[in-house]
Amino acid sequence: MPPPSPTISVAVLGCGLIGESWSALFLAHGLDVAAWDPDGAVLAALPERVERLLGQLRALGTATTVPGRLSIAPTVAAAVAGAGWIQENAPEKTVVKHSLYAEVEAAAAADAVIASSTSSLTWTDLAAGVVRRDRLVTAHPFNPPHLMPLVELFAADARALARAQTFYRGLGRATVVLKKDAVGRIANRLASALWREAVNIVAEGIADVADVDAALVHGPGLRWSVIGAHMAYHLGGGPGGIAHYLDHLGPSQERRWATLGSPSLTPEVRQLLIDGIAQEASGRSVATLEAERDHGLILTLAARRNAKQGVDA
Amino acid sequence: MPPPSPTISVAVLGCGLIGESWSALFLAHGLDVAAWDPDGAVLAALPERVERLLGQLRALGTATTVPGRLSIAPTVAAAVAGAGWIQENAPEKTVVKHSLYAEVEAAAAADAVIASSTSSLTWTDLAAGVVRRDRLVTAHPFNPPHLMPLVELFAADARALARAQTFYRGLGRATVVLKKDAVGRIANRLASALWREAVNIVAEGIADVADVDAALVHGPGLRWSVIGAHMAYHLGGGPGGIAHYLDHLGPSQERRWATLGSPSLTPEVRQLLIDGIAQEASGRSVATLEAERDHGLILTLAARRNAKQGVDA
Repeated sequence: MPPPSPTISVAVLGCGLIGESWSALFLAHGLDVAAWDPDGAVLAALPERVERLLGQLRALGTATTVPGRLSIAPTVAAAVAGAGWIQENAPEKTVVKHSLYAEVEAAAAADAVIASSTSSLTWTDLAAGVVRRDRLVTAHPFNPPHLMPLVELFAADARALARAQTFYRGLGRATVVLKKDAVGRIANRLASALWREAVNIVAEGIADVADVDAALVHGPGLRWSVIGAHMAYHLGGGPGGIAHYLDHLGPSQERRWATLGSPSLTPEVRQLLIDGIAQEASGRSVATLEAERDHGLILTLAARRNAKQGVDA
Repeated sequence: MPPPSPTISVAVLGCGLIGESWSALFLAHGLDVAAWDPDGAVLAALPERVERLLGQLRALGTATTVPGRLSIAPTVAAAVAGAGWIQENAPEKTVVKHSLYAEVEAAAAADAVIASSTSSLTWTDLAAGVVRRDRLVTAHPFNPPHLMPLVELFAADARALARAQTFYRGLGRATVVLKKDAVGRIANRLASALWREAVNIVAEGIADVADVDAALVHGPGLRWSVIGAHMAYHLGGGPGGIAHYLDHLGPSQERRWATLGSPSLTPEVRQLLIDGIAQEASGRSVATLEAERDHGLILTLAARRNAKQGVDA
């Protein structure tokens, strides 16, 4: 199995928010995309939706001047027939994905990789429905994948894993590798742990939803967009680094861990969150908030490119 | 108590990493600073250290053309005598801070605000050593304060709180207000909750330190530098927002919360973290890593300024 070449073509199976975003990323890097979705209306709307996302990538300067070609495939078999890479974004139901994999395996080339974007299922869950497990990879992106660099990878086969690293890095993605197949992987486990305490702070009446979000965006979130949590504590240890930090502040961290909350999403807590978001959104629709998020992400990613060019220069 | 005017002068008590960073921020906004520290060597080195940080603020475009004047005060009384604002950054020991407050209250003007940068102590802890509690504020910055916008405020007195919001917002800070005096406030509780799971992922062998950090920086950290955790789940709910999210994915979040870890910083876990950081740092010193962090923060903050100007325009 050679690494996929720049002229590889990609099948995108499932063209909701994740599939359309992947499609834009692939096309922006000059790869041809054959897209399939069980919903004809989704497929009909796809070219226009993808074009909007491609515009964001052009603005960011990450799109090639000649994008790949987008074709709409009438069947799964037609989508995967000529594909070297198959990106599956079907609903998060094992039975749906297994059924789809049977169609894929009947029609795909022998060396095509099947990469699942699954968020809530594990590789092991999916492998139960695949014959050629050596070419099954979980490649979990962070939404929206055309902007967020992270892709979390797991595969049982070392060559499939290596191919996945090569493929996504070629698309400018930041890949991380799981050492074992774990529910929630890394990013969603971290996000879930943080949100539990964010909910607890609201439930305990320590601060409002909007202030919790503002503290995150202007404090730890900003920091974690530049350095990771482990590295932050390494710097927090001064010249002695993480060892000094653990010696001097490890016990106080363990004491704080013991004071963190274990909230439940009771009707009362649920209402606090809904009311708090309404206050924070201040009349802005989800679509407007999404557009603001994407605008902020694009500016931050552009700043990162400048940082990287500064380092490379 | 009128809000502090732009010509207010500030006493900075304690000139370690936090005090020197606050000093640079105050000076960059045209405020005069009278600095005191019990360690003469720290004071002697202060002008040069502050000048370096001022250079970062000039590069960022947030410094006025004529900075305030920095003076070194021989005593606490001399530092606070002419000050309208007193920023206290003494060691995190109640007895040390109480003793310092006694000196401050003996010499400060009647309407001067005493603002503590304390991270680990609460307002209540500090108030036990203050006579005029109506002018005591906790104003917890996120390190380094001259770059990180967040300041977490708590005060028992509503006018002191309002003055603090006015003062720090005037310095371009993002202020959040605690509804009650809580250990860890917002940001450190969130950071602690996230790090607990980051340690757990390493302890459980799911991923290495460097991959945990990379997943955070390229995934949730990047997102949380743009939108908060609550708002992210609001967008995760699609057009139905947070209510839809809670209805459909609330139960699965609660199930995931139950699977998150409660690690201990045992010698084995400690060694995994130390070895993992060594691998991630790849020979870079703490000073080099700090410089890289500051460079990344400055670029991201500059991108935010552009975003804000785009919205304002």
